[in-house]
Amino acid sequence: MSDAYQKLLELNRQLQLLRDAEAVLSWDQETQMPRAGVEWRAEQMAFLGGEIHRRATAPEVGDWIAACEAGACNPESGECANIREWRHDYDRATRLPTSLVEEFEKTRAIAKSAWAEARAKSDFGAFAPHLERLVALSRRKIECWGHDACPYDALLDEFERGERSSELRQLFGGLRKDLVALVEEALEREPFDDSRIAGQNYPVADQARFNHEVAEAIGFDFAAGRIDTAVHPFCTGVGPRDTRLTTRYDETDFRSSLFGVLHEAGHGLYDQGLPEDLHSQPVGRAVSLGVHESQSRLWENHVGRGRAFWEHWLPRAAEIFPHLAKVTPEEMFRSVNQARRSHIRVEADEVTYDLHIMLRFEIETAIFDGDLAVADIPGEWNRRFEDFLGLKVERDADGCLQDIHWSLGIFGYFPTYSLGNLNASHLFAAALGRKPGIETLLARGDYSGLLGWMREHIHRPGSRWLPRDLIARAAGSPATPDAHLAHLRERYLES
Amino acid sequence: MSDAYQKLLELNRQLQLLRDAEAVLSWDQETQMPRAGVEWRAEQMAFLGGEIHRRATAPEVGDWIAACEAGACNPESGECANIREWRHDYDRATRLPTSLVEEFEKTRAIAKSAWAEARAKSDFGAFAPHLERLVALSRRKIECWGHDACPYDALLDEFERGERSSELRQLFGGLRKDLVALVEEALEREPFDDSRIAGQNYPVADQARFNHEVAEAIGFDFAAGRIDTAVHPFCTGVGPRDTRLTTRYDETDFRSSLFGVLHEAGHGLYDQGLPEDLHSQPVGRAVSLGVHESQSRLWENHVGRGRAFWEHWLPRAAEIFPHLAKVTPEEMFRSVNQARRSHIRVEADEVTYDLHIMLRFEIETAIFDGDLAVADIPGEWNRRFEDFLGLKVERDADGCLQDIHWSLGIFGYFPTYSLGNLNASHLFAAALGRKPGIETLLARGDYSGLLGWMREHIHRPGSRWLPRDLIARAAGSPATPDAHLAHLRERYLES
Repeated sequence: MSDAYQKLLELNRQLQLLRDAEAVLSWDQETQMPRAGVEWRAEQMAFLGGEIHRRATAPEVGDWIAACEAGACNPESGECANIREWRHDYDRATRLPTSLVEEFEKTRAIAKSAWAEARAKSDFGAFAPHLERLVALSRRKIECWGHDACPYDALLDEFERGERSSELRQLFGGLRKDLVALVEEALEREPFDDSRIAGQNYPVADQARFNHEVAEAIGFDFAAGRIDTAVHPFCTGVGPRDTRLTTRYDETDFRSSLFGVLHEAGHGLYDQGLPEDLHSQPVGRAVSLGVHESQSRLWENHVGRGRAFWEHWLPRAAEIFPHLAKVTPEEMFRSVNQARRSHIRVEADEVTYDLHIMLRFEIETAIFDGDLAVADIPGEWNRRFEDFLGLKVERDADGCLQDIHWSLGIFGYFPTYSLGNLNASHLFAAALGRKPGIETLLARGDYSGLLGWMREHIHRPGSRWLPRDLIARAAGSPATPDAHLAHLRERYLES
Repeated sequence: MSDAYQKLLELNRQLQLLRDAEAVLSWDQETQMPRAGVEWRAEQMAFLGGEIHRRATAPEVGDWIAACEAGACNPESGECANIREWRHDYDRATRLPTSLVEEFEKTRAIAKSAWAEARAKSDFGAFAPHLERLVALSRRKIECWGHDACPYDALLDEFERGERSSELRQLFGGLRKDLVALVEEALEREPFDDSRIAGQNYPVADQARFNHEVAEAIGFDFAAGRIDTAVHPFCTGVGPRDTRLTTRYDETDFRSSLFGVLHEAGHGLYDQGLPEDLHSQPVGRAVSLGVHESQSRLWENHVGRGRAFWEHWLPRAAEIFPHLAKVTPEEMFRSVNQARRSHIRVEADEVTYDLHIMLRFEIETAIFDGDLAVADIPGEWNRRFEDFLGLKVERDADGCLQDIHWSLGIFGYFPTYSLGNLNASHLFAAALGRKPGIETLLARGDYSGLLGWMREHIHRPGSRWLPRDLIARAAGSPATPDAHLAHLRERYLES
């Protein structure tokens, strides 16, 4: 290894130590910090963020990367992946002038409060000027970054390396027609009465115990992780062997925290499966949000909402929550796979979820293609929403004001949710197809086969390949809508 | 304010942001971190510690301090105190060569493990060579730092700014004679049978509830603080409005965690009472360990082990722990003020505690005066221990191997425990003497009078004056043994 490469490794070690310190401070803020600590914590986060940026973008870093690029390197190697990602990150970070970064930060801090207020009053007009500013600043960022075909790709690249809107348009286009029909049919089914499950008493401590058992059973390592309570559940890795999940509890329904924990533990399993010794190198990190979300959705939906899961776990749940003794696994299965019309994305069931995402993707791309003005978002949102879901939007608070993302200047993130769903179904089908033993194990409540396959094909490779290539190598082809549609049909129509 | 002064303020802000990040990481490690996180966390702490040291000792910092010293400044002002402390800290930090600091860190890391093993086997000989090395390295540190009268003063200064061993010798000498006699007399009293209090069932959640109520009542602000569980209880401030206490629980006796919380909350009240706006400046920080310990011992002993406390709180305790209904406040008071012979410092009652400390002080000063060789410590310890407490030491594990301090190369720390006791009694007597209303309020369970006095005279001044001057300004004179002896007599002989 060259001297320049060694210097980059050491820089990366230091940056990772700082980033992980930031992650601990952030986790602490969400789960532990007394409320009066908030101002000083904000100063700390800004200071650490500035330090990290300053070190990562120093001129000599560019020289080191150039020196690495000048040398030879096996394109299949981890070294090559590191150099590729260093170049990518360095260019993205250094192409933005500091003044633009600062203006963006200031604008979004103000926009976030304006959004919260606008949503409370369902007043899009009050939020629109802020959104205009964030869109304009994002356009300037795109110009600085540059792009090949479509400006939106430069935004997308922040969350899904190498992804393009043209590919996504095709992928989502293929999904959309079948999905709208599938949703319609699913919505026509007789609703399942789950009043024997919902609206009962589920003490928090008992839920926590059950969730812990389930998380441990699917393979989450509690010697290197923990679960806490947070208002907005998340999973964060704060070190190579320290992964922290959070959940929230509904004392009238244990399923809310259970599926939350399965989802976050799915993220956590990915985090715990990344190569420890490469923790501070680009090649050792999770490859993209769309792949991360495939792991959370895999354990939440494919495993956790499956028949086999409830045949195995319902007896144990009934030991902890005795009134569940009257519920059959089949009933539980039906209850957790029901289609419902909902305005709110985060409350959507698995079958309608992707329609919420595609709507957002279409609106975001239209904005950055210059085909949609900010002022026209509500009309466009409501028209499409009724098209997709057959539901009128009466208030923007339940429509285009519902998500926090845009108020933070985050564009290009939403599509990764659906990519996650498609990847999850695609990978699950591939794993079961290639190793039929996995399904037998799952029926016995043994998750080692499925986890082992994901460890080998998804977790351990880290960022050696770009997301699309990783999926193709793992499953034999990139994700298409087929496996996902088949999965939804089986869950929502054929059961 | 001069340009140099401004630069130092900004440097201090940045250093404090980093130090507080370190404090969060350390708190997290003791209370939350999964065990597999330990190696990466150690790397983070070392990295942050190195960053802080590098910034604090940069050559331009010395120039800025010199520029400030060259200007005029009111000796009573906060600016003057800042400049005084900047000079002190800078000189202490820069006078040690990096090679010495590194050697010390390495030596103590090894010594700590060796001590743990030696203590387990009660084998002083196995620890002695490590202790020799730490003493030799500490002598080199003393040489680098310099000292006026006594080499030990240079060590003491790390924990108790401006304190001198000659003064301590005089202070402890005055205490010792009377205290040995007092202890003897206290030990002759009929032991109180507290089997109706100890050895009962006190569920952790109930203890936590009671402790929370008590901590809140004495003034601990839970909007700016919290209590967690830790193996070795401590209090740490991680920001100007974020103070974290820890305790541990004994399910057979609620008094252990209660007095632990009163002690740590005493530290916490000091922390919460420091001037927020000066948080990152030397003048805004706690002035010394001996003053910090005065605040913890004040609330633990003077308040918490007092008659008035139990007259007020026992009825509430009996609501939570019903079997306490059979205990009278007088009995509870007796039970928490009993003298017992003990080999172990951390298990010692209030009346014998200072004898444990004086023994250590005498041994430490003898070592650094060159009057005692490391090999002779056990003999010297055991001889003095029997002198002081009338108890033979059979095993070094219960004698000179019991404390972790020396294995960490910490010399000069022990005397601050007794200084804390003397300061606590001195300040408590002064507060009650000057504001007789405080005592009336205490009898009603109203702690605002006492806290208000401490806020005004001890907390808010921060580090404006050196510890001894602070106490003298607050109480009219520096601490003498008188108030403490009177307090112990009243608690242990006259009750």
